[in-house]
Amino acid sequence: MNAELIIIVMALLSIVTAIFYASRVVRIKVGAEGGNVEQNKRLIEIAAAISEGAMAFLLREYRVILLFISFMTVLIFLLLDNPKTVFNEGAYTAIAFVSGALISCLSGFVGMKIATAGNVRTAQAAKTSLSAAFRVAYDSGAVMGFGLIGLAVLGLIGLFMAFTGLNKDIPVHILMESLAGFGLGGSSVALFGRVGGGIYTKAADVGADLVGKVEKGIPEDDPRNPATIADNVGDNVGDIAGMGADLFGSAAEATCAALVIGATASALAEGDNYAALLYPLLISAIGIPASLITSFFARVKENGNVERALKFQLWISTFLVAIGLYFVTDIFMIDSFQIGEQTITKWNVFTSVLLGLFAGMFIGWITEIFTSHSYKPVREVADACETGAATNIIYGLALGYKSSVVPVVLLVIVIVVSNLIAGMYGIAVAAIGMISTIAIGLTIDAYGPVSDNAGGIAEMAELGKEVRDRTDNLDAAGNTTAAVGKGFAIGSAALTSLALFAAFITRAQATSKAMGEGAIDLTSIELLDPWVFGGLLFGAMLPFIFSAMTMKSVGKAALDMVKEVRRQFKEIPGLMEGTAKPEYAKCVDISTSAALREMIPPGLLVLLSPIVVGYFFGVKSLAGMLAGALVSGVVMAISMANSGGAWDNAKKYIEKTAGGKGSDKHKAAVVGDTVGDPFKDTSGPSINILIKLMAITSLVFAEFFVLKGGILLPFFK
Amino acid sequence: MNAELIIIVMALLSIVTAIFYASRVVRIKVGAEGGNVEQNKRLIEIAAAISEGAMAFLLREYRVILLFISFMTVLIFLLLDNPKTVFNEGAYTAIAFVSGALISCLSGFVGMKIATAGNVRTAQAAKTSLSAAFRVAYDSGAVMGFGLIGLAVLGLIGLFMAFTGLNKDIPVHILMESLAGFGLGGSSVALFGRVGGGIYTKAADVGADLVGKVEKGIPEDDPRNPATIADNVGDNVGDIAGMGADLFGSAAEATCAALVIGATASALAEGDNYAALLYPLLISAIGIPASLITSFFARVKENGNVERALKFQLWISTFLVAIGLYFVTDIFMIDSFQIGEQTITKWNVFTSVLLGLFAGMFIGWITEIFTSHSYKPVREVADACETGAATNIIYGLALGYKSSVVPVVLLVIVIVVSNLIAGMYGIAVAAIGMISTIAIGLTIDAYGPVSDNAGGIAEMAELGKEVRDRTDNLDAAGNTTAAVGKGFAIGSAALTSLALFAAFITRAQATSKAMGEGAIDLTSIELLDPWVFGGLLFGAMLPFIFSAMTMKSVGKAALDMVKEVRRQFKEIPGLMEGTAKPEYAKCVDISTSAALREMIPPGLLVLLSPIVVGYFFGVKSLAGMLAGALVSGVVMAISMANSGGAWDNAKKYIEKTAGGKGSDKHKAAVVGDTVGDPFKDTSGPSINILIKLMAITSLVFAEFFVLKGGILLPFFK
Repeated sequence: MNAELIIIVMALLSIVTAIFYASRVVRIKVGAEGGNVEQNKRLIEIAAAISEGAMAFLLREYRVILLFISFMTVLIFLLLDNPKTVFNEGAYTAIAFVSGALISCLSGFVGMKIATAGNVRTAQAAKTSLSAAFRVAYDSGAVMGFGLIGLAVLGLIGLFMAFTGLNKDIPVHILMESLAGFGLGGSSVALFGRVGGGIYTKAADVGADLVGKVEKGIPEDDPRNPATIADNVGDNVGDIAGMGADLFGSAAEATCAALVIGATASALAEGDNYAALLYPLLISAIGIPASLITSFFARVKENGNVERALKFQLWISTFLVAIGLYFVTDIFMIDSFQIGEQTITKWNVFTSVLLGLFAGMFIGWITEIFTSHSYKPVREVADACETGAATNIIYGLALGYKSSVVPVVLLVIVIVVSNLIAGMYGIAVAAIGMISTIAIGLTIDAYGPVSDNAGGIAEMAELGKEVRDRTDNLDAAGNTTAAVGKGFAIGSAALTSLALFAAFITRAQATSKAMGEGAIDLTSIELLDPWVFGGLLFGAMLPFIFSAMTMKSVGKAALDMVKEVRRQFKEIPGLMEGTAKPEYAKCVDISTSAALREMIPPGLLVLLSPIVVGYFFGVKSLAGMLAGALVSGVVMAISMANSGGAWDNAKKYIEKTAGGKGSDKHKAAVVGDTVGDPFKDTSGPSINILIKLMAITSLVFAEFFVLKGGILLPFFK
Repeated sequence: MNAELIIIVMALLSIVTAIFYASRVVRIKVGAEGGNVEQNKRLIEIAAAISEGAMAFLLREYRVILLFISFMTVLIFLLLDNPKTVFNEGAYTAIAFVSGALISCLSGFVGMKIATAGNVRTAQAAKTSLSAAFRVAYDSGAVMGFGLIGLAVLGLIGLFMAFTGLNKDIPVHILMESLAGFGLGGSSVALFGRVGGGIYTKAADVGADLVGKVEKGIPEDDPRNPATIADNVGDNVGDIAGMGADLFGSAAEATCAALVIGATASALAEGDNYAALLYPLLISAIGIPASLITSFFARVKENGNVERALKFQLWISTFLVAIGLYFVTDIFMIDSFQIGEQTITKWNVFTSVLLGLFAGMFIGWITEIFTSHSYKPVREVADACETGAATNIIYGLALGYKSSVVPVVLLVIVIVVSNLIAGMYGIAVAAIGMISTIAIGLTIDAYGPVSDNAGGIAEMAELGKEVRDRTDNLDAAGNTTAAVGKGFAIGSAALTSLALFAAFITRAQATSKAMGEGAIDLTSIELLDPWVFGGLLFGAMLPFIFSAMTMKSVGKAALDMVKEVRRQFKEIPGLMEGTAKPEYAKCVDISTSAALREMIPPGLLVLLSPIVVGYFFGVKSLAGMLAGALVSGVVMAISMANSGGAWDNAKKYIEKTAGGKGSDKHKAAVVGDTVGDPFKDTSGPSINILIKLMAITSLVFAEFFVLKGGILLPFFK
């Protein structure tokens, strides 16, 4: 069977599925399902405001990103242009880079467009029934899920075929290194998407809550709150565009890492065996039909359990992918191949993929235990609110730290076992395995903010309590699955980074070996080498300073927002009484400007650190830095995401049980929730990108660092 | 000149100095300086209650520690008894271990005894003048400072002379490895001292504040608060005994690491060159006269600047030590020696020591900038209280993360440069250099809680506003220098751990080489080896879970305390009116029990992790784990200490300026301060011990791990 053909067909299937779901959503006419004229008019108005705000932000963000892409393209072209070689690596890498970046932007744009169409339609469907509303929200998410992975796979296979077709004389492992530019492109967009989107959404959220809920005592999403539109826009730009770009990056990078490492096995690098070389893409490809079948099971009865339905989705897709993978491995993978001195059989590879797949499931499950108020940990945090905000914070932080143990141990097991049986290739395919159900994972992730928005729109358009109850029901389930999704995201980021890191070392070693006499000796990267250890310590600090920057950015932007909201309540007569309209656009503008301004410094930190360290201190320091950032970043990202999730749900638990809104206990819980906002939605998830992006930057510029890097080292001799 | 003799003389000088200062303190008669009879009676009563509580805790803690020491002694004896060798390493290591542990206990005991005698005398002297009170507090601290380093140096030189004298045929590098038991002993006591003391002090502090200040609105140290005696006891057991044991451990461990590494240089290991081998002890020895001279300059005029006087102490001692070191190096160090393939000159060694010494100064200075409210960072945190507790927490955490950058960069510079010029020996002597002014550093550290206690006693005994103002003045300066002291402690812990880590690897490699055929190949510890990298990730998680345990312990113990204090206010009639006395002893008992109960699990985590990992997964995994814990632990310890210090001082800043006590802004600041308490006084500083203790445990058991460890590895072949 022709692997290329199957991959293309699956990618197209995915895109067609996305188009199908999109058409199902937009076909629904807003305002058609009864309700009075006034209500429908409000519905359309509010939805338009959110949609416009989201698009305005996205376009302004993309303008910044475009500038950055141009700059990076030139940089790649210049630094990687090695006139001594026949193959213009700079040009090819630049092409891959631009493709990755643009496809990521496109995915984000489409996802956002449909999410802002789906939210109002979900709210409207909630007038009819829970099951109808669920379906609309799910369908909107599916557009993102299927569209994104379809485009990613199509882009990668297209570039692969073009590169190999145009350069028949160039060894395929060199071509694959250029292909890594695709991952770099996707991840660069993700950086700005995650950081910018994260700052936007939390500035609006924290700002809206601090004045609206805490000072004025009006409910969430109350139309009198000037920041409420910005808050709803934030859900889209942070959780849809940001999350999508993050996972797009993971999928692209993990695949690139596996391709680069796989191409060093001569057995895979031969033209006849391209099917086996393309195995990483086949893993993603087989996830598409598995996800499609899974999506047929997505339904909820009236009064049904939404959360269970969503979790069921993850289980089915995992199960189906596992079966599909068995056949894919058997048919396309060659019986065994060599990487270095290690012999790897096809079943070793299969085992590694499964390890990643099921470790992801487990990490998701553990994440749920630590962040859902159905379990003891979150209830302990809620109980700690009894003695005030301080004990709430202490318990919540401790919970986050503690929650990292099991995921870390699982990752260690995956790393050690898959490495022992299949080398670094094993780790790379384990990373792809972990996100092979990405179409479903992302559908569920995007479902969350759509439901959340639907609730906001229902409240603002005053659709009534029954409608709001239904959207709340949808939203609550989305919160839990969002936490689970974050577990997947960080787990896959850890494995992906390690695989990229290994690919970087492999490539640097090959380059140094090829240079022969005079080149730096990279045969061993010793842990106790002062440059390596210095890099390790320096790298371990990077996630901390990065988090400090993003958290403070949220704090500063929220402060701006608070001032504006307070001003409007003070200066607009009749606002509190509901007789005058707030100036929503001003708040949207504050979040937009703040996000765009504040995303630059942490973005530069991530992009420049590897380049500066590699250029001035060479490959060994850079290797240490990557390892340090990876290990401290993983633990920190898990801790932050889970502390944040736990505080959020501890607050909800108190609202539902003893205490209730307005009690001292609830006030203490709100403090935790507010601290948790940047933890779980800005800093924590951004660390994923930090570790992946630094690793892929190192990989792409590996040759440059070996040839021209380490310029300060001679002074220390 | 005879190096041994000089070291012994200096150690005795230090002990005599301590006895001199002790006699100066206890000579002062409590109640002799006028004041009415009732006041004096109260003064004596309160001081006795604090002293009894502190001693009761210490004795119960030592009982637990004694049990542990017995267990470890047997373990060391059994695991290190290698019948194949002539030299009974187990026995010698066990002797060194017991000596280290007992001397550490003795230092803690003496320090505590004098601190609880000094506190009441400081309060009494504050009736006369600021300068008199300052001198009493300083003298009390000096007993701890000089006594501790004197005993440490005396113990080490005594063991050195005994070991080398009794075993003239055994190579000195094997003897030095046994001597490392001394460091392990000291550090084990430090573990329980820091963790137990940290939990005690913060449970009492948080408990007293939450009910007293927040619920009842009575001032700090109000005699009506049942937890107030426990709170004052806590200052002694946490900040005196805990801090002392920590720095005793650092001094002993850094010296052991340098001796172990130095002994691998054949030039130093020859009998004629023992003076050069003893260079690490000479660094500490020369610090003693330098500190003694410095202590003559310790004076403050009435209305003088206490903080400047204390900081001046650090500068003078640093300057004097630097000069002394020049001569010591020139006289005792041999011109050059070889370690492995590296040639190290005496001036390379000198440069490394100076690097450590001045890096410590810089780290202290940076710590001050991030934790004193004279500078912008803390003021920003104070401003963030404007919008509530949540923004205060966000800003404070971000400040802590950010504050790690400069210390980490400084440590990286020290590590890289001293390693390049003097190998791992350079790092070890840099660590000793950083704490060569320990006598003064510890004096100032111990001065803090004595002044703090004096303030508490003045308040409880109602000595009047003028007295309280003087003690507050002393206490405020102590807070800043405490933060600086923590900077030193973590910096030296990082360098010490790295040196120990290197000594461990050196020893493991030597053992594996000596075993020849069949032994595990340790010639290179590759960063990308799956066992190493798995260990690295696992190790990076350890400081997080350790912090989770200690923070939750504080939370739990504080909760018990809150309940008891509430009960007393409810059940004892007339307590709030001041007509009835609270049951102080019950609160003391709660803190004591909680601390002893809660210190066991984190203690076991630290002690067992290296043994379990080394035994089951072998030396490579253990090396990875140590490196991971070191790099993430250092950043975390700095962040936690500085966040805590910043919150504390942000609150004080608000009290002094706009807002003031009772305002909303102040309430928000109190939340940060309460979260910061376990950060800066329990979890943060305990991480120092975590990284040092795991490294020295690995060093002591290195041979065992190579010979018998890694039992699970064959299953993965």
